[in-house]
Amino acid sequence: MQIAFPLFEGFTALDAIGPYTVLARLRGAEAIFVAEQRGPVRDDLALTAQADASFDEVTRPDIILVPGGLVTRRMARDGHPAIDWIRQVHPTTTWTTSVCTGAVLLAAAGVLEGLEATTHWVAYDQLNALGARPTAERVVVSGKVVTGAGVSAGIDMALTLAGIIAGPEVAQATQLVIEYDPQPPYDSGSPAKAPAALFADVSSRMREAEERTLA
Amino acid sequence: MQIAFPLFEGFTALDAIGPYTVLARLRGAEAIFVAEQRGPVRDDLALTAQADASFDEVTRPDIILVPGGLVTRRMARDGHPAIDWIRQVHPTTTWTTSVCTGAVLLAAAGVLEGLEATTHWVAYDQLNALGARPTAERVVVSGKVVTGAGVSAGIDMALTLAGIIAGPEVAQATQLVIEYDPQPPYDSGSPAKAPAALFADVSSRMREAEERTLA
Repeated sequence: MQIAFPLFEGFTALDAIGPYTVLARLRGAEAIFVAEQRGPVRDDLALTAQADASFDEVTRPDIILVPGGLVTRRMARDGHPAIDWIRQVHPTTTWTTSVCTGAVLLAAAGVLEGLEATTHWVAYDQLNALGARPTAERVVVSGKVVTGAGVSAGIDMALTLAGIIAGPEVAQATQLVIEYDPQPPYDSGSPAKAPAALFADVSSRMREAEERTLA
Repeated sequence: MQIAFPLFEGFTALDAIGPYTVLARLRGAEAIFVAEQRGPVRDDLALTAQADASFDEVTRPDIILVPGGLVTRRMARDGHPAIDWIRQVHPTTTWTTSVCTGAVLLAAAGVLEGLEATTHWVAYDQLNALGARPTAERVVVSGKVVTGAGVSAGIDMALTLAGIIAGPEVAQATQLVIEYDPQPPYDSGSPAKAPAALFADVSSRMREAEERTLA
């Protein structure tokens, strides 16, 4: 069971590493980080991860997990090898999945046409404009396409998927291994729960940051 | 505010990447991944991350965040440059922190002597043997030493720390940016919550895996 994690400059590391931590532990899993070329790929902050294979070398992954980042809107606008690769491998995957604005890349590849899907709350409009039906759920299973909401939602998405693939006991065991008993010290993790003024501020700052990536 | 993340062969990626995603977003933060030498460091599964500095080059970090892994017990037994580095930089840090069995490395460096601290549930005994006072909390703040429980607890730990450093509004804004509104599909994330048989099974498998690292 090959699980491929496509990387690109500006990806959000936790989008990939959360689900990777769950899925790469499944029996028979072979996790591989893949990018346009083998070698280092910088995320959106200060991490350099290594792609161990190029897109050309990973042609029949069983599962793909596409992370997001503020750059995905530009990638969807301008085209990107990661989008071409998603389009090529999706027909033969068992599961095509995304976290955060990775869904924007799935949509740009035509994978989400008419499908219910979720993404980071900042990107519902983008997803809609690309033909998907965005919904404010944490995890959405639409046939073989599974999408997770923003960044940290990848852990919930991957546990959901692990339960479908390997059964609830395996997913529960993984949850215990990674001690996933969340106790956030605050309760502002979604637009509905955050104070309105905080949401407005964060939303406008994220949109500005995204605009800068489009310039 | 330099935040250093020490890496070593066999580290658990999410231990570092969860808190990194929170802390590296703080205003004025400069996150840096550091290891015995600059260059690639393999985690405990299939990720290669890059250390952008050697331990020698990072002598006065403001914050250190030490990830764990099954190898930490062996590192504590045999000694390791990461432990030496922790011992050297701890006196001048503002915050010395760990996630999961990163606490075992803090303890091996003498940082936890007599202190309340938490770690992955599999390692309470080890932590006790190394002079700390392990407690089954998700996050423990003991003066400037902040420890988080297993793997995913690093996100809760980092949000707690972000709130202390930058104030609750900044921490809440970060929680919203990373959409940290956890909705685990199962409720087996701690020894107290997991079914007893599942806990016994996972516990014995983890201990066996750890034994193999000691051989």
